Amino acid sequence: MANETDNNPCDTDGAAHAFDLTLERILDASPEKVFRAYTDPTILSQWFAPKPWRITDAVVEPRPGGRFNFVMHGPDGERFPNSGVFLEVIENRRLISTDAFTPDWKPSGQPFMVAQIDMEPTADGKTKYTATARHWNEDALKQHEQMGFHEGWGQVADQLAELVKAL
Amino acid sequence: MANETDNNPCDTDGAAHAFDLTLERILDASPEKVFRAYTDPTILSQWFAPKPWRITDAVVEPRPGGRFNFVMHGPDGERFPNSGVFLEVIENRRLISTDAFTPDWKPSGQPFMVAQIDMEPTADGKTKYTATARHWNEDALKQHEQMGFHEGWGQVADQLAELVKAL
Repeated sequence: MANETDNNPCDTDGAAHAFDLTLERILDASPEKVFRAYTDPTILSQWFAPKPWRITDAVVEPRPGGRFNFVMHGPDGERFPNSGVFLEVIENRRLISTDAFTPDWKPSGQPFMVAQIDMEPTADGKTKYTATARHWNEDALKQHEQMGFHEGWGQVADQLAELVKAL
Repeated sequence: MANETDNNPCDTDGAAHAFDLTLERILDASPEKVFRAYTDPTILSQWFAPKPWRITDAVVEPRPGGRFNFVMHGPDGERFPNSGVFLEVIENRRLISTDAFTPDWKPSGQPFMVAQIDMEPTADGKTKYTATARHWNEDALKQHEQMGFHEGWGQVADQLAELVKAL
């Protein structure tokens, strides 16, 4: 048992540290359709990467501990396998996933973020869509900003907005 | 969107990295009693710290996303608040918790480990108890070993073994 209070992993103060990036849109479709666009792998593959990037091999198991995997491909042959799990799923309302775990709650090699998607119905039948990327520390937050969070997630939200209109 | 493949957080390969510490015991009580010893805060407080350490302020909400909080006190006035959440709960069989999140799946400041407790009934009415501490990297694993994982968790398992006999 450690006796030091400095940098002691036993000493987890429970403070939530707000290293969040967030994005909001009103989508012209019901939350049910937005939820379907996220959880149907075939539909997800049509909008989830900012074009000309694209995803393949999507696996979506929308339940706590279920897999959320895909491979992202870039225009110059880049290939990034992504894998994660869902932490919380509220049908037609919320999806929270993270790359911090592989199935069976095994820690992944490189935890980066928690992604929270909220879908709130509006009075006029549309969806208030809020996407939040939460990070464990400021470095990850800044790295994500520099990778182009706002442009990338913004473009993806626009692609989603177009797609759900036609669902 | 990043183009580098080195150290790119988009590139999560989904490999589970085995930075695990584990401990096994046969406990002379049913899994139901062992589960109760974990999830009843009053009982938990009687065995969960290796004496003369002790815990107070236990909060146990055994459901995914529920809190698992306590304050650990040392004999020389050390005080370590611990807070975490449950990732998975199977009644009388399994408890998985982590300090990587605060409630509502917000990343904590200092993720250290995932703790998995398995309670398996044996043919003769006892419990095969397996406690596994999983870490995100080798540094955390070594730090935990040096903090005395085997002695600490071993002593705690002995305390639990004594206590459940009388439940």
